[in-house]
Amino acid sequence: MNHPANLAAVKIALPDELLSALQNLLEDRCSIAQAVRAHHGTDESSYDPMLPDAVVFAQTTDEVAAIVKLCHHYGVPVIPYGAGSSLEGHILALRGGISLDLSQMNKMVAVHPEDLTATVQAGVTRKQLNLEIRDTGLFFPIDPGADATLGGMSATRASGTNAVRYGTMRENVLALTVVTADGRIIKTGSRAKKSSAGYDLTRLFVGSEGTLGIITEVTVKLYPLPEAISAAVCSFPGNSEAVNCVIQTIQMGVPVARVEFLDANGVRAINAHDKLTLPEKPLLLFEFHGSEQGVREQAEIVQEIAAANGAGDFEWATRPEDRSRLWAARHNAYFALLQLRPGARSISTDCCVPISRLAECISETQLDCENHHILYSIIGHVGDGNFHVLMLVDPSNPQEVAVAEEVNQRMVTRAIAMDGTCTGEHGVGIHKMGFLIEEHGAGAIHMMRMLKHAFDPKNILNPGKIIAWDEA
Amino acid sequence: MNHPANLAAVKIALPDELLSALQNLLEDRCSIAQAVRAHHGTDESSYDPMLPDAVVFAQTTDEVAAIVKLCHHYGVPVIPYGAGSSLEGHILALRGGISLDLSQMNKMVAVHPEDLTATVQAGVTRKQLNLEIRDTGLFFPIDPGADATLGGMSATRASGTNAVRYGTMRENVLALTVVTADGRIIKTGSRAKKSSAGYDLTRLFVGSEGTLGIITEVTVKLYPLPEAISAAVCSFPGNSEAVNCVIQTIQMGVPVARVEFLDANGVRAINAHDKLTLPEKPLLLFEFHGSEQGVREQAEIVQEIAAANGAGDFEWATRPEDRSRLWAARHNAYFALLQLRPGARSISTDCCVPISRLAECISETQLDCENHHILYSIIGHVGDGNFHVLMLVDPSNPQEVAVAEEVNQRMVTRAIAMDGTCTGEHGVGIHKMGFLIEEHGAGAIHMMRMLKHAFDPKNILNPGKIIAWDEA
Repeated sequence: MNHPANLAAVKIALPDELLSALQNLLEDRCSIAQAVRAHHGTDESSYDPMLPDAVVFAQTTDEVAAIVKLCHHYGVPVIPYGAGSSLEGHILALRGGISLDLSQMNKMVAVHPEDLTATVQAGVTRKQLNLEIRDTGLFFPIDPGADATLGGMSATRASGTNAVRYGTMRENVLALTVVTADGRIIKTGSRAKKSSAGYDLTRLFVGSEGTLGIITEVTVKLYPLPEAISAAVCSFPGNSEAVNCVIQTIQMGVPVARVEFLDANGVRAINAHDKLTLPEKPLLLFEFHGSEQGVREQAEIVQEIAAANGAGDFEWATRPEDRSRLWAARHNAYFALLQLRPGARSISTDCCVPISRLAECISETQLDCENHHILYSIIGHVGDGNFHVLMLVDPSNPQEVAVAEEVNQRMVTRAIAMDGTCTGEHGVGIHKMGFLIEEHGAGAIHMMRMLKHAFDPKNILNPGKIIAWDEA
Repeated sequence: MNHPANLAAVKIALPDELLSALQNLLEDRCSIAQAVRAHHGTDESSYDPMLPDAVVFAQTTDEVAAIVKLCHHYGVPVIPYGAGSSLEGHILALRGGISLDLSQMNKMVAVHPEDLTATVQAGVTRKQLNLEIRDTGLFFPIDPGADATLGGMSATRASGTNAVRYGTMRENVLALTVVTADGRIIKTGSRAKKSSAGYDLTRLFVGSEGTLGIITEVTVKLYPLPEAISAAVCSFPGNSEAVNCVIQTIQMGVPVARVEFLDANGVRAINAHDKLTLPEKPLLLFEFHGSEQGVREQAEIVQEIAAANGAGDFEWATRPEDRSRLWAARHNAYFALLQLRPGARSISTDCCVPISRLAECISETQLDCENHHILYSIIGHVGDGNFHVLMLVDPSNPQEVAVAEEVNQRMVTRAIAMDGTCTGEHGVGIHKMGFLIEEHGAGAIHMMRMLKHAFDPKNILNPGKIIAWDEA
């Protein structure tokens, strides 16, 4: 329903010689089939599909290097593709070119339980990683909902439900193997827990959305499985009571592992979708990790704070299967919400503000949605000050789409004015390029552009994402 | 005693016009006095002093921008200077130029206790920050020993004793104000706890040692003061028993706030310097933060692990004054050690390895020191896999210096072979430039060089540090 007309989508022709060279290199792992191209040119954003000219499936870092070298030679765009679960238009082939699918790079490279680290190929998903290490007593906490690949999660600086306790990909990636624009293979770090050895290339590629290099291997931190885990849900009379409970919990320094907010619409949707019977009121989902005693202590403090904010009783889920059911429902919220309005698509957005401004930011956004008669839900990783707005619109109704985009615009402007950010975890892609300038200002954008020019002088790496090539 | 002869120290003449312009701008805050230049051309490294041609004292970001613009115009080096406590030659004026002293930029910009953040000018020191926020119930944990400035700590990606629990400057800086090489003022982030909004400029300037921009303001995370704090020391029969105790503590996921190692020489030195009576055996210093019960639980687990490794009893310091005395002694270890050999200087180095390799890395380094009859001490932030070697040498004896440098060389090579890093927290400066190449390889160094060229095309920002301007 959307086309980024403002981004001059100059189509690069795919030279026959490049296609032949790729076919020679990869044989049946190079495809120009319409269905394959369509699959790789469609994401979870509200944009219409934009197809690459060909799709290649790499299995090793060396193959990625060879593919990128060829594309570099011919000046053809390369767009890395993991699970295709990104939300802001990251994988759309604005200018055509090659979609480089890394999902077959799904091997574990090394697990070092004694150092609490694992190195995986970029196509390993977070669920696969946790399955592979299930016998070590360790786990990888970062959980953006979708079963994304570690490469994609690194590239978008993903976070999700556990970030309030364990940090985001920014804090949990130790090192990367990256293929640069001219096809060199570099390693950005060691397995040391900390380092002051030169520029932080790791953090530079984390969040670069495929525009500075192609991530082919990821080394992440692992954590000992907590001795005790318990989860609880708790309903509140209104959004602001729930959010104030979270604010006070964070300000007191309670190390909650997860604290998720769903508004009444969100609860209604997951009740219907997952056959739950939660009260259709604003809800917080908590998870506590620690020793038996530690978990009890945390829960007691939070229950007191919740009660002081008018909450109902905690409903506990201590058995693993109950917890899984709860978190599955939370993760299904996006799809559950879509079913509230058959045929609708969701304009999904996220922002993140300093914790003290969260209640205000959410309530003003809620009011804006209501004033404009949008069917919406606000859900979020509120412990970080991060929340999502999902607005259900009829994709064939440009008026509805425009109204929702205006709500999004005002939400972002509001978050930035509160010293927050235009995206807490979705990334910039195409959708938030304008907001990036609003947030960072011309000077910082200029530095980002110099970075892009230095690392990718021919503009072949996921071109047209994050920042425009030229000054506006 | 050392001169980096390998770095062609081409001296840039200071143009009279530049000096006049700086004097007009800053009046008596621009000095060419020999004593002032000598002070700013001397650091805690083993290098001979290298003096800047002039020293300027800035008080605002706008002044820094004006100074850098002038230096940019004349192509004259600018070297940011905080507390002068860096250890690897960071502030030495290899090519002359201007030392830009930020210590008068010591104002608090904003404290947001409700968001657990503070923004300070770059010249505020960590002790000053903690004093300024003492009424908020919050604290800033990063503690590299020296009372360094927040700007300097950001620039060297500092860490220290609390990093095992709270992370390093990498994890604790939310945003920076930076003056770029051409004198623009940029902000690199917001106060949101997380963000996926574009390239991570914050992490790029953290650890860039003044070579990519001049940090003028720093926004950091704060933490609620723990409900309970307790500290204990514990002696071990040998280094490897102490280190194994640490390894097992970390592998079990015990959230110790501090765990510091001192070898027997280190203990001997602080006993003499601080009038303590600790057993002159390898020692661990622990600090536990949490609830009363949480601290007890942590301490119990660690005591069991220590006992299994042949440790003596824990000696507790629960009163704040006892803890202060203990940590003061730990922080004085460097100066205490110097007194073990009057007239000596210390060649101090640090490295960091994955935790499982720590015992091996320390014992091989110890053996190397002993085989070469060096008076040395190994101390460190062992919970992170990070340790220091201090070698006391006669600065007038080139043979001794050379032997110590060779030990350092082998230690770094050993750490890198264990998938560790050539510096955990001191930074690269001049001293570790060769090791940086060894650690990262030509490809990654090439990317770092492209970064430097993009951000500082005239090579005026602390030139000759971290990486050489040209390919070797």
